[in-house]
Amino acid sequence: MPWTATSELGRSARKRKLILDAATAAFLSRGYDGTSMDDVAALAAVSKPTVYKHFADKERLFYEIVLATTDQMSELVRLVAEAFVETDNLDRDLCAFARQFIGALMQPDVLRLRRLVIANADRFPEMGRAWYEHGFERVLATLANQFQRLTEQQLLGAHDPEMAANHFVGLLLWIPVNKVMFSGESALSSEEELERFADAAVFVFLQAYGRQHGSDAR
Amino acid sequence: MPWTATSELGRSARKRKLILDAATAAFLSRGYDGTSMDDVAALAAVSKPTVYKHFADKERLFYEIVLATTDQMSELVRLVAEAFVETDNLDRDLCAFARQFIGALMQPDVLRLRRLVIANADRFPEMGRAWYEHGFERVLATLANQFQRLTEQQLLGAHDPEMAANHFVGLLLWIPVNKVMFSGESALSSEEELERFADAAVFVFLQAYGRQHGSDAR
Repeated sequence: MPWTATSELGRSARKRKLILDAATAAFLSRGYDGTSMDDVAALAAVSKPTVYKHFADKERLFYEIVLATTDQMSELVRLVAEAFVETDNLDRDLCAFARQFIGALMQPDVLRLRRLVIANADRFPEMGRAWYEHGFERVLATLANQFQRLTEQQLLGAHDPEMAANHFVGLLLWIPVNKVMFSGESALSSEEELERFADAAVFVFLQAYGRQHGSDAR
Repeated sequence: MPWTATSELGRSARKRKLILDAATAAFLSRGYDGTSMDDVAALAAVSKPTVYKHFADKERLFYEIVLATTDQMSELVRLVAEAFVETDNLDRDLCAFARQFIGALMQPDVLRLRRLVIANADRFPEMGRAWYEHGFERVLATLANQFQRLTEQQLLGAHDPEMAANHFVGLLLWIPVNKVMFSGESALSSEEELERFADAAVFVFLQAYGRQHGSDAR
């Protein structure tokens, strides 16, 4: 009976989604050690055997929720990929992009995930590496592609576009991200401070990688 | 009897040191949750009551070992403070300094401590904040002082020396530090890669903050 099979599947997929959402919330607020499979079952309002039916153990569940969040990165990748498609004023568009980019990465949930991955990277190196590659590096690679294209169009002088992307993001994020990582969420910068970081980073970036300096930039 | 009192004191201080060393090793390798007071007593080869005689609970012990490591930062602060005292070739000295600085901060023990503090910063915000202020910010402030002095000597054009220090360190460390934070210790950069990061960071820094661009730099 196909209808029954379909609704069984639908019910199963819905439960799986409930469990994943509950586990994400629990891991982000209590960490890996502070979260038990009992907690996840209670939060998802399903039985513990149901949790185990979908996820063999806590480690597997953790791995899945961390990888699922790299999908959120896809939105950021799209933002990067669309930022300078038809720019006629790179300085202005780079400033606007820097503000959007820092705003997206300084969201409390993104920072909580960052802390969670870092806290457990030595224990689950495969998980950390996967997150680095599918999240962190994917954004950088997209940005490097943009800088390469802009350099080919002679709008920028980034002859090592990977290094230029590293520098752009490092100039932008080193202080506000570390402040929160070390001091906790109460140290989140204000929107005004983030705009100041964005503008200062773009200014320095263009001094080094702007078209006028392009012939010197390594 | 003063001799007895002194040797009692000496014995007590030695035991305290043994406990701190054992706790440092345990926390760095197993994390906060993975370490028990029993583990610390066993590693230090003292009894559990002796551990509690010196430290009221695990949280207090953790707090003390994290703050003790900010003393290690003093060496880095000295390195920064002495880097350009009598420079007659800032480009060369800045490159040498960048290589020393990245080498010091990419030591496995420093990175392990970084991970430990980040993992627990939301749980013990006072500890994280103290580490940020006595460790991270102290180094940045010393570097900012240097950049200010070099600007007064017209060797540099860093009219916002705090921002310049932020940028210098962000250009230098964003990639190698994050690689290890997310992917674990197997992702440590080679010495050659670190030198490449150092040279590229100094090149970009001088494009923006070098004397020739000084009048423009914000």
